[in-house]
Amino acid sequence: MMQPIWLLLLLIGLFHLSHQATNTWVWRCNQEVCVRQHSNKNSIQTNVFRSIEECRLVCGADGSIWPLPSVKFNKSSKLLDINPNEITFELVGSDPVKEILEENVKIFKKNILSECRGACGSDGEALNIKVIVNSTDVSLNWETDESYELKSNNLFWKINAATVFGARHGLESLSQLIAAYNAQDKIGLVTVANVHIVDKPFYKHRSLMIDTGRNFLTVETIKRQIDAMASSKLNILHWHITDSQSFPYVSVRVPNLSRFGSFSENQVYNPQDIKELRDYAKIRGIRILMEIDAPSHAGNGWQWGPHKALGNLSVCVNKQPWRYNCIQPPCGQLNPANIQVYNVLNALYKDIVEQFPESEFFHMGGDEVYFPCWNSTPEIVNYMKQQGKGQNKGDLLDLWGEFQENALAAYDSAVGNSDTKILLWSSELTNPEAIEKYLDKNRYIIETWVPSYDPLPQSLLEKGYKLVISTKNAWYLDHGFWGNTKYYTWRNVYENRLINHRNVIGGEVCMWGELVNGDAIDSRVWPRAAAAAERLWSNSYATTKQVEARMYRHRERLISRGIAAEALTPFWCYQNEGQCL
Amino acid sequence: MMQPIWLLLLLIGLFHLSHQATNTWVWRCNQEVCVRQHSNKNSIQTNVFRSIEECRLVCGADGSIWPLPSVKFNKSSKLLDINPNEITFELVGSDPVKEILEENVKIFKKNILSECRGACGSDGEALNIKVIVNSTDVSLNWETDESYELKSNNLFWKINAATVFGARHGLESLSQLIAAYNAQDKIGLVTVANVHIVDKPFYKHRSLMIDTGRNFLTVETIKRQIDAMASSKLNILHWHITDSQSFPYVSVRVPNLSRFGSFSENQVYNPQDIKELRDYAKIRGIRILMEIDAPSHAGNGWQWGPHKALGNLSVCVNKQPWRYNCIQPPCGQLNPANIQVYNVLNALYKDIVEQFPESEFFHMGGDEVYFPCWNSTPEIVNYMKQQGKGQNKGDLLDLWGEFQENALAAYDSAVGNSDTKILLWSSELTNPEAIEKYLDKNRYIIETWVPSYDPLPQSLLEKGYKLVISTKNAWYLDHGFWGNTKYYTWRNVYENRLINHRNVIGGEVCMWGELVNGDAIDSRVWPRAAAAAERLWSNSYATTKQVEARMYRHRERLISRGIAAEALTPFWCYQNEGQCL
Repeated sequence: MMQPIWLLLLLIGLFHLSHQATNTWVWRCNQEVCVRQHSNKNSIQTNVFRSIEECRLVCGADGSIWPLPSVKFNKSSKLLDINPNEITFELVGSDPVKEILEENVKIFKKNILSECRGACGSDGEALNIKVIVNSTDVSLNWETDESYELKSNNLFWKINAATVFGARHGLESLSQLIAAYNAQDKIGLVTVANVHIVDKPFYKHRSLMIDTGRNFLTVETIKRQIDAMASSKLNILHWHITDSQSFPYVSVRVPNLSRFGSFSENQVYNPQDIKELRDYAKIRGIRILMEIDAPSHAGNGWQWGPHKALGNLSVCVNKQPWRYNCIQPPCGQLNPANIQVYNVLNALYKDIVEQFPESEFFHMGGDEVYFPCWNSTPEIVNYMKQQGKGQNKGDLLDLWGEFQENALAAYDSAVGNSDTKILLWSSELTNPEAIEKYLDKNRYIIETWVPSYDPLPQSLLEKGYKLVISTKNAWYLDHGFWGNTKYYTWRNVYENRLINHRNVIGGEVCMWGELVNGDAIDSRVWPRAAAAAERLWSNSYATTKQVEARMYRHRERLISRGIAAEALTPFWCYQNEGQCL
Repeated sequence: MMQPIWLLLLLIGLFHLSHQATNTWVWRCNQEVCVRQHSNKNSIQTNVFRSIEECRLVCGADGSIWPLPSVKFNKSSKLLDINPNEITFELVGSDPVKEILEENVKIFKKNILSECRGACGSDGEALNIKVIVNSTDVSLNWETDESYELKSNNLFWKINAATVFGARHGLESLSQLIAAYNAQDKIGLVTVANVHIVDKPFYKHRSLMIDTGRNFLTVETIKRQIDAMASSKLNILHWHITDSQSFPYVSVRVPNLSRFGSFSENQVYNPQDIKELRDYAKIRGIRILMEIDAPSHAGNGWQWGPHKALGNLSVCVNKQPWRYNCIQPPCGQLNPANIQVYNVLNALYKDIVEQFPESEFFHMGGDEVYFPCWNSTPEIVNYMKQQGKGQNKGDLLDLWGEFQENALAAYDSAVGNSDTKILLWSSELTNPEAIEKYLDKNRYIIETWVPSYDPLPQSLLEKGYKLVISTKNAWYLDHGFWGNTKYYTWRNVYENRLINHRNVIGGEVCMWGELVNGDAIDSRVWPRAAAAAERLWSNSYATTKQVEARMYRHRERLISRGIAAEALTPFWCYQNEGQCL
């Protein structure tokens, strides 16, 4: 055994240990990378940035806007300290346009203040922001022009946009051109002096799907998803509101659906909730795409019928053993042989149409019909016999096709025309050899959810169908937590390129709800959905290595804005760009 | 094309659709399973429960306490509505005991009120709770008797325990014998009339590890982890407070460590924070096991030296390319050839010892020393040459052993005796063929972190070492989010049995912090850590199928208590026990 040497060390003395190091950091921009170093208070330092966020604003060509502007992004390296209390807006547009703009001005102010967590100083210059919207139209749909131009001359900013929603994107980008600095004990905001952005989305359909059928999400939780979507320029919230587990949507015309189908009286969405979310989303340039999944994924909520003699609306409801009756418990499939089903659907659709009068689309689900359920229901077997049909796959596809036709008719009746585009999940009904028999390519848009190597999307495109692509092995955010599925990192999500074809109208990241609710959803969805958002907005050829620092920055931005986004890396790697590759 | 049939349906009429279903549910206990059914207001229903939580209290032998009492758990099926405003306590014990008990009474009340989310009615009976603690000793260590007995006779409850910490566990169990019921618009609390529990833990070391070196966690976030631990009867919070990425611990004697090593001035733990957490934990029967990882995982914070001529405390700090210098960026390893290192460690340890004067243990880390770093540092190579040593593995192990001996001496000097048990991660130094040369089995406890199939724990037990086991392929909660690692479900966590040997003092679930911080940590740790907690407390032979309903119940309990625990299942499966197997 060696003699402990620490005794000797006492001779050296402890008094040296409290020698003070400088305790603040500064950053330099070196070859497009922000490099951290100790600040040296004893010497004048030039060209240093007071925070990583300040450095990121101007270091490199791409700055810190997420998603990256797609047409033009020029900026100077000159920074200006600004006073958040002295930002003036000049809004030019029609009254309805200005109403939406004013809400977005509030959001903009809240967002930039969040950068310094409510502790912004009031040093710095006044900022003048002029927003000009040319069109008086405030409808929001696939044809909405979302482009904008953003230009600044020192403290004077101008946003030009065809529509108010393009202007909103411009304000979002502008908010991302503002960051907090820290200098001594002072926190303030800083922006870039001269910027010119021309920007527009690559895809017109950029969506996130949430699922409130498996686990209930509060209105506040959904609003947080909308906030994060707006921060990332996603424009459609696809709301898979019901499933076989529950029916939380309160239908005014068919209250039995949620009475039978909600988990409890508190876990429901009243018409007031729906309208509140619809309006909250629209102000942020986001439409809600409602989905009532049918004829499968429909059990609880449907286990009754208006006329008892005609039977229940749904069959196999909660039937055991579930593995013989459905793909996931609890079982349940609408009964296509029960004429009441279409009557109820018509009434339900009327409620939805009234709540979304401007909507050009609706999602009818349509995935995972489990034929053995229908085939084991005597009522349905008899119904098919009466039509001279048997029980083989072709017969059952015909039955499903008949259901879909009747459901479409019920929808068209509810809305009063045949203009609405209907989205359907890919399924056996949408297989290339079956689809043209059952689904009109002018009415239906197919949401494919197959893995990237599956030829289905290409086959459907060849047949002339329009698609929304949700690549299962990259954009299914529930994967990694069950079975043999794999968790997809933000890099996997980012690297998922969609087929380049004019009939691919966009893509969707999906947050299926079996294993997520409440606060946990934030970290499961974000910032990964933002990685998809840049794919859908900019669709650039950048590698994840090239966008890493900007992605990390966007994650911090989401945190500042109250989204409990997942950590992507040790914080040191955020502060020391490119050092952890 | 078929003619749409919906037109016909109008004849049937819509007026039937609003036929009202009953909108509340009740539960029955059927063969130890709570079965949901519609309440039928028109007939008198007997033997029904007003909520799943009420049913779970008494349905089946195991009720709803998590972890399951290990010695005896008898209960009646009689329920009593209680008034939360009329709970009286009689506390019997010494003054220091009563002080801790009074804090636990507050926690108890808060916990039971959380069951009805603050909306408890005041119907029901008064409850009388007597708590008797025999020992006046309020120290908390491995030898603390954590057993308790809990007995009730209708509205009179009695907890008997040797120590105040056993009594705390008794109160925790009692809080889990109280649930909310819903009846019409009324919410209230209900408990079980006659209960007899005799309970004690299987393992004395039941820990959760958190890591604030990779990403900072606020004091509030750490308190939430402590709350959830207390709810699950875990008793040790292992705090991996520093790593090569950052040194957030503010050492009074060596302030340079956090000055050089913290991410920012705000991302630090001041002595006040440490004491606050220590006391917060102790009231809840939890000790904090501090870890300062060394000699590896020590970079930022150590990149200086009290005497410049003697060089810096750490070598390879932030060195690139990192893959040649460490296992994970940023690199950094303490310099065992720099005599100042032990001096600084001694001062740092003194700070910690002062903050944890009662502590019988300390964790020195000791994992993943990367020899090429030391071998590429001329200073270290020269130092070894002076000792007549070369650069092969044996030489480097000797150097590491020397470091460990000096670090131990520095610790013993700080505390003034040689009684403290030192925990070390398993490493090349703890390999069966090396360990006895370097580590005294009376001083060191090895924390193994190898997969379940690795023979290391068994080998070390055969040599007489005491172990804490952290099974890497089951209890590493960071897995599944990076590389080829797999996410472990609560079932995987639960099924991980430790080696049955008297020198296995317990086990630990580890939440490494590279990819988690803030709110997201709740859902990554909970309720999975609770699954480990039952393994460590009860160590029963129950299958996950048998404990599923109780686990789901505990997850809801954690949510009620403010922990954003992950969803384990669709809510329907929680409400319909055993239907989703």
